Amino acid sequence: MTIIEAEGSGADVPQEGAAVHGYHHQKDEHLKRLRRIEGQIRGLQRLVDEDVYCIDILTQVSASTKALQSFALQLLEEHLRHCVADAAVKGGTEIDAKVEEATKAIARLLRT
Amino acid sequence: MTIIEAEGSGADVPQEGAAVHGYHHQKDEHLKRLRRIEGQIRGLQRLVDEDVYCIDILTQVSASTKALQSFALQLLEEHLRHCVADAAVKGGTEIDAKVEEATKAIARLLRT
Amino acid sequence: MTIIEAEGSGADVPQEGAAVHGYHHQKDEHLKRLRRIEGQIRGLQRLVDEDVYCIDILTQVSASTKALQSFALQLLEEHLRHCVADAAVKGGTEIDAKVEEATKAIARLLRT
Amino acid sequence: MTIIEAEGSGADVPQEGAAVHGYHHQKDEHLKRLRRIEGQIRGLQRLVDEDVYCIDILTQVSASTKALQSFALQLLEEHLRHCVADAAVKGGTEIDAKVEEATKAIARLLRT
Repeated sequence: MTIIEAEGSGADVPQEGAAVHGYHHQKDEHLKRLRRIEGQIRGLQRLVDEDVYCIDILTQVSASTKALQSFALQLLEEHLRHCVADAAVKGGTEIDAKVEEATKAIARLLRT
Repeated sequence: MTIIEAEGSGADVPQEGAAVHGYHHQKDEHLKRLRRIEGQIRGLQRLVDEDVYCIDILTQVSASTKALQSFALQLLEEHLRHCVADAAVKGGTEIDAKVEEATKAIARLLRT
Repeated sequence: MTIIEAEGSGADVPQEGAAVHGYHHQKDEHLKRLRRIEGQIRGLQRLVDEDVYCIDILTQVSASTKALQSFALQLLEEHLRHCVADAAVKGGTEIDAKVEEATKAIARLLRT
Repeated sequence: MTIIEAEGSGADVPQEGAAVHGYHHQKDEHLKRLRRIEGQIRGLQRLVDEDVYCIDILTQVSASTKALQSFALQLLEEHLRHCVADAAVKGGTEIDAKVEEATKAIARLLRT
């Protein structure tokens, strides 16, 4: 699976035949989500700056963390649906590597 | 980024006797941490934009989530050391309310 | 602890052609893990009964939770490797349902 | 703060004047909760034994983990209300040690 160098071409649509990652198709949605999270983090800075009550800041931290986790789950779902499923269809041993890799990523998400 | 509006003074150092939240004293450190997290979120946008491999993005999401949790723990520690401890010293029933409030904040952090 | 009731045979090895879940092959290992976790929970009862210091009990709760999460990850890995991969190979729309279901299970694990 | 050796005396009620941990007063409730969690873990063994579908087992693992987290939160709340608040009232440096210790315990809960 190769990485599309969309930046070089300036195009959002990969060339025909080029392999794309699962999340490619939702790219705009992902970027929108991340920009919203960036806004939440800037909001946190404002709260700290304005000496807002600790507990209210913690509530906002929980909301940002939840938003990051939702983004991760969305990405993971697309990864399973495309990359992992593709490996299964291809046959061979790639599926084992893909599943192990995905499980490790889930473990990292769980441990944070 | 924004203007500090410390309670009653407009300065970063509160007037004598003014109540400040626990985290006030580490304000600069907190803002530095949050700006670093903001940078991580912008980094995530770049990764999505450049069609980087899903799993590598998930690794970065885990790192950002961990950074947010560390920030929350730091804030919580200062809250316990100052606001909760102050309520205990004052006596009366405020300590019960403070502890309940802190526990609910911890529960929110745990459930994200 | 309980009697094994393997599908259609009463034995631990399923009949040829019988559908088995991904984790079937590691059944003994899973049961061993779960019995160890059961022992940890009984250990927790002993600690409470003996009025052990709160923080030491919390440390043991964290260890038990981690053990449960490891068990979940092991199960999930086998599920992806077998059930999800099989659905991908079969083709059709089942893969979508399987991936959605797995993602929801991961979301539930993340939110606890 | 000393540990009550209730096991030696066979009595659930500490001697007058003996320091008790925060959770002592809810001991019966805690033991009941833990026995329920022990039952959930035995239920998990039954599910594995009966080759129940992976996802249904994962749902039950999430429920058990959530029950453990609730137990931890209950314990933590009592710890803050009693042990940490007591240290604050006593004055001196013990409050710093207690808060640091509690924060580390919360960090361990968060990372599982």
